[in-house]
Amino acid sequence: MAGNSYGTLYKVTTFGESHGEALGGIIDGCPSGIEIDFEAIELDMARRKPGQSAIVTQRKEPDAVRFLSGIFEGKTTGTPIGFIIPNTNQKSDDYSHIKDNYRPSHADYVYDQKYGFRDYRGGGRSSARETASRVVAGAIAKQMLPEIKINAYVSSVGPIHLETPYQELDFSKIESNPVRCPDEKSAAIMEEYIRDIRKQGDTVGGVVSCVIQNVPVGLGEPVFDKLHAELGKAMLSINAVKGFEYGSGFSGSEMKGSEHNDLYNPDGTTKTNLSGGIQGGISNGMDIYFRVAFKPVATIMQTQDSLDNKGNITPMTGKGRHDPCVVPRAVPIVEAMAAIVLADFYLINKTY
Amino acid sequence: MAGNSYGTLYKVTTFGESHGEALGGIIDGCPSGIEIDFEAIELDMARRKPGQSAIVTQRKEPDAVRFLSGIFEGKTTGTPIGFIIPNTNQKSDDYSHIKDNYRPSHADYVYDQKYGFRDYRGGGRSSARETASRVVAGAIAKQMLPEIKINAYVSSVGPIHLETPYQELDFSKIESNPVRCPDEKSAAIMEEYIRDIRKQGDTVGGVVSCVIQNVPVGLGEPVFDKLHAELGKAMLSINAVKGFEYGSGFSGSEMKGSEHNDLYNPDGTTKTNLSGGIQGGISNGMDIYFRVAFKPVATIMQTQDSLDNKGNITPMTGKGRHDPCVVPRAVPIVEAMAAIVLADFYLINKTY
Amino acid sequence: MAGNSYGTLYKVTTFGESHGEALGGIIDGCPSGIEIDFEAIELDMARRKPGQSAIVTQRKEPDAVRFLSGIFEGKTTGTPIGFIIPNTNQKSDDYSHIKDNYRPSHADYVYDQKYGFRDYRGGGRSSARETASRVVAGAIAKQMLPEIKINAYVSSVGPIHLETPYQELDFSKIESNPVRCPDEKSAAIMEEYIRDIRKQGDTVGGVVSCVIQNVPVGLGEPVFDKLHAELGKAMLSINAVKGFEYGSGFSGSEMKGSEHNDLYNPDGTTKTNLSGGIQGGISNGMDIYFRVAFKPVATIMQTQDSLDNKGNITPMTGKGRHDPCVVPRAVPIVEAMAAIVLADFYLINKTY
Amino acid sequence: MAGNSYGTLYKVTTFGESHGEALGGIIDGCPSGIEIDFEAIELDMARRKPGQSAIVTQRKEPDAVRFLSGIFEGKTTGTPIGFIIPNTNQKSDDYSHIKDNYRPSHADYVYDQKYGFRDYRGGGRSSARETASRVVAGAIAKQMLPEIKINAYVSSVGPIHLETPYQELDFSKIESNPVRCPDEKSAAIMEEYIRDIRKQGDTVGGVVSCVIQNVPVGLGEPVFDKLHAELGKAMLSINAVKGFEYGSGFSGSEMKGSEHNDLYNPDGTTKTNLSGGIQGGISNGMDIYFRVAFKPVATIMQTQDSLDNKGNITPMTGKGRHDPCVVPRAVPIVEAMAAIVLADFYLINKTY
Repeated sequence: MAGNSYGTLYKVTTFGESHGEALGGIIDGCPSGIEIDFEAIELDMARRKPGQSAIVTQRKEPDAVRFLSGIFEGKTTGTPIGFIIPNTNQKSDDYSHIKDNYRPSHADYVYDQKYGFRDYRGGGRSSARETASRVVAGAIAKQMLPEIKINAYVSSVGPIHLETPYQELDFSKIESNPVRCPDEKSAAIMEEYIRDIRKQGDTVGGVVSCVIQNVPVGLGEPVFDKLHAELGKAMLSINAVKGFEYGSGFSGSEMKGSEHNDLYNPDGTTKTNLSGGIQGGISNGMDIYFRVAFKPVATIMQTQDSLDNKGNITPMTGKGRHDPCVVPRAVPIVEAMAAIVLADFYLINKTY
Repeated sequence: MAGNSYGTLYKVTTFGESHGEALGGIIDGCPSGIEIDFEAIELDMARRKPGQSAIVTQRKEPDAVRFLSGIFEGKTTGTPIGFIIPNTNQKSDDYSHIKDNYRPSHADYVYDQKYGFRDYRGGGRSSARETASRVVAGAIAKQMLPEIKINAYVSSVGPIHLETPYQELDFSKIESNPVRCPDEKSAAIMEEYIRDIRKQGDTVGGVVSCVIQNVPVGLGEPVFDKLHAELGKAMLSINAVKGFEYGSGFSGSEMKGSEHNDLYNPDGTTKTNLSGGIQGGISNGMDIYFRVAFKPVATIMQTQDSLDNKGNITPMTGKGRHDPCVVPRAVPIVEAMAAIVLADFYLINKTY
Repeated sequence: MAGNSYGTLYKVTTFGESHGEALGGIIDGCPSGIEIDFEAIELDMARRKPGQSAIVTQRKEPDAVRFLSGIFEGKTTGTPIGFIIPNTNQKSDDYSHIKDNYRPSHADYVYDQKYGFRDYRGGGRSSARETASRVVAGAIAKQMLPEIKINAYVSSVGPIHLETPYQELDFSKIESNPVRCPDEKSAAIMEEYIRDIRKQGDTVGGVVSCVIQNVPVGLGEPVFDKLHAELGKAMLSINAVKGFEYGSGFSGSEMKGSEHNDLYNPDGTTKTNLSGGIQGGISNGMDIYFRVAFKPVATIMQTQDSLDNKGNITPMTGKGRHDPCVVPRAVPIVEAMAAIVLADFYLINKTY
Repeated sequence: MAGNSYGTLYKVTTFGESHGEALGGIIDGCPSGIEIDFEAIELDMARRKPGQSAIVTQRKEPDAVRFLSGIFEGKTTGTPIGFIIPNTNQKSDDYSHIKDNYRPSHADYVYDQKYGFRDYRGGGRSSARETASRVVAGAIAKQMLPEIKINAYVSSVGPIHLETPYQELDFSKIESNPVRCPDEKSAAIMEEYIRDIRKQGDTVGGVVSCVIQNVPVGLGEPVFDKLHAELGKAMLSINAVKGFEYGSGFSGSEMKGSEHNDLYNPDGTTKTNLSGGIQGGISNGMDIYFRVAFKPVATIMQTQDSLDNKGNITPMTGKGRHDPCVVPRAVPIVEAMAAIVLADFYLINKTY
């Protein structure tokens, strides 16, 4: 298994540690002849990177991606696309305090237990910095599927929830505020809340909602590789994700069948869409929508007990990077993973 | 892809339609020398099958499994375990009414669109009858991992929720009532509610909670094949599932980092377990727990509009099998898929 | 890995031991809507089975295949095709003499070493009886690719070689003699040779040649999954195979580039075809041809030393089944594996 | 599929075109804690690269590998090892003559047909330069398996064959001559022959033999992923390979069972080893040996007809790089692929 690849036909493999020389990846299976919009890729990279606004971490990550293969004269060649994202902040002295210490709710302890050894600098492989490579692969997947529209946005921050159904939102406003919430009023409250959390040296979680439109009927491979099962896995593979629901989700479990069933229109569309655009694991052409829950980031600027590798409990205070709420930055990652899943199923579906 | 296999080293492939000659599957990668407890397998099969009690469908499915290979003198040989579960109810006349009709919120429409053709008898491949094969594969996975304890139970039925934390429940009571809720009082209310739903000819959803104990540290393969990502995919691949959350789940998204972090004890265990036994995608030895949301089954005994394959809307009333609440029957399926996921990661982890 | 599956999109998984209840398999990924010619399948099964003529073993294997799923009203549905081939000769007393003994050049010893345990009846999983399932999967693959013509034949038996280039052979004569050699004169000599070998209680190897015609340009996935690399793996996975060469093969290694290069015609075909229809791992539309070397079967009717599981050398004489030359029976297996490989690449190539 | 990955647990994915910015790859699944000998990697790289001696091409390829992840403080961490090999000869003007022309017996034509488009510079992805990445991955695989000894050497060049059995050769002499033939007398004749071929502006093929010693019993996964089937695939995936045989190989097909069977010694070793160290697809602890046939390289310095993309036949003379015999340079590639195959099976075998 080895775990660092995603997909069967649109196959993405990533490598790289937070403070190694570079991150990167290989996209194998991207069809040939796709004209690459490099600016669109850089734009998604910029949306993911820290330091975009006052409410996120100020650490600089230039995140310039260099494509090394698979693109010739601006178009994909059908051969694997190799790319790297150099790390510019490799000095590791900042992380000496965690060399022998396991931070609470981080992966330090389990990596040491599993591998007997770890690159302790900045979380190493377990750092969310790895998701930069996913954003690259997702940006190309989007360009492979130009008709499909994927829009993710922040629908809750801590206790503050945007209750408006997605149909009533204006997705063009998502990027108009640092929270990436398309409802300006909610965005302002969320932003204020995050500023407070930042002052406390604390962090907070939230929810990203995602809507996928113009999906052709037929994507998804029952019985194990149902479309929503792969979407769920892809989302749950993003750092800090604790839950996934699509369509009616958990609230659907409280409903009756007579309420939950989506009745048909004569053209095969449905009057309601509690199914969330997927039936029997296969897209039915209606909007796909789902929600992804993110826990608060574990690194806080307060002092908490940690465990050292000799079994001592020692107080530790977070240093350097403070990301009070990563949920806005997770928006492009959710979109990227959705695009990768769709690209893979799109290719598989061409074989029928 | 093709979609009918799960796992890398403990690899399960299933086949079979609801009303074909037989269901079955192949388990490839089960280590040799495991003494098979056939009664335990039959017991899990019996827990899944319809007709166990007054609150579930009365359709008879004997579900006798026949092992055809891979087991010799009562022990696994390390070669693939092939098995079949004959269907005894193959007459298809009951299903003529759906031959040309797409039932709302069923997979009829998308199967026809994707494959151009379908076995319409009883849902064909999209029927939950397929999960019988999963239960067989899961039962053997459990026997491969005798120390790990997997307990699933019904924690909500429609609007009725069991709020008691799992630590305060007595898992030995799960099988003491037809709802499979270990809290007898809640079970009685749930049962009553399901009886009402049955009388209405309706159906209702619910939630299955699952707790996995005695898991060794180290299971899970970052970054894409995180333990909870595979558990999520496995659960979402079960028919009617709409959501998955583990540990603090969606409610964790409302918390602050200072509240959510699990502080260590000197032995590497944690004082709290909001992480749900998994950190960075790898088991940390604490209890793993998660919740799985099931929508209400689409087949109701009321009359609802359906779509025929000529584009006409026609009223249809469910026939035959009425399963007002499948959630109790889903309990062994959730356990089975959890066992399959763990078996696969257990084998992978042996390679380090 | 687990090893009992072949293919990515046209994925075949087999199970079954020589003397278990049944063999069988699952074909996952076969497109929907293919009208199945069951007689053609039975014909290939009959070509593989023992007891077809005086020169092969007389053991009876009825080899009737039963399809359990994935075919409805005579057509494939796109869901997995499960099938079984019941074993009718399950009584195992014939094999008590090998229970504790490792036959020379059989897999008995390595199975015991690897798995700590084995189904010793008739070779168990290592028996060539497993290839019956491959023939089923290959027969369906052929029906998926009706335009591609696959013809295999025996081109050598022991020291007797058919030197005629395939272009001068009449493939319609392959089935006209029990040796499956399309040159009648060579066939007669080979048959005579095998009769002699049979009288000696010995066995002999041989070579199967295979020619694939009407292949579209573009099949094969560089760099690791080159078309000839997968064909080679597929052939080498057949019992008793010791070598594979395609196009100019080993003799090509003696040539100069100026002799070996295939010059083009204006339409993209080539004047010569030392490349064997594959360039850079991708089919170029010319005939694909390759040769597969089979060693003599290890079971002979003479007395040879064997090793028992206590480390004693003991003489052993083969019992029961005597197959002096399996090469004619291997012809349909070679064709089947070729068809499976082509079906898989055909589906993958549709994704570009 | 996509084709650019090899292996299941020790999984190698490569990228890169001959004249792109860089080649490279990702090794996913390498266990943690392996101390990397970087010099040994560079040594294998140097053995593969052009320009080592007067008989091979003089093109300079510095082939310096840069590891970007997965190695920390000199040891593997268990996370993916990303690496790149920058190309220093990126100017593409040398290749303008093949931009619109298909060279005979090259992959130019099929790439254009399959992908509709190609990076024509120096063969692009189809160039053997890709094998540099395999050598890196193989060098690390060797370090993962320090006890297993892999020795490949040139056993024939064109019509000149080294007939000495490997048991009588001194492997320490392989690197003592530019042909990589351990028999000095044969080496001198081969070298002379290659010089002649060079003068003619021609090329010649040859055979690489490989011997693997100290292999534990049990590697290989029947039935499809037999050890020799994977070795065969791995070798056939190397550019210019036309054939593979192991143990008795093609000559074994001429033998009788009574001659071919390997009789046991009491300790489980065998008196002869026509099986080539593999029985039933599983290593039996005896030496594994196999032969790999390479055709002559297609690029010759003589004038031959080529096809342009408008259907015209036009004469073409090879330019620049002239590699009269790549077989000596293929030796480290054969070893690398063997090491990768063994590493993968070694990890899989740990799961039993």
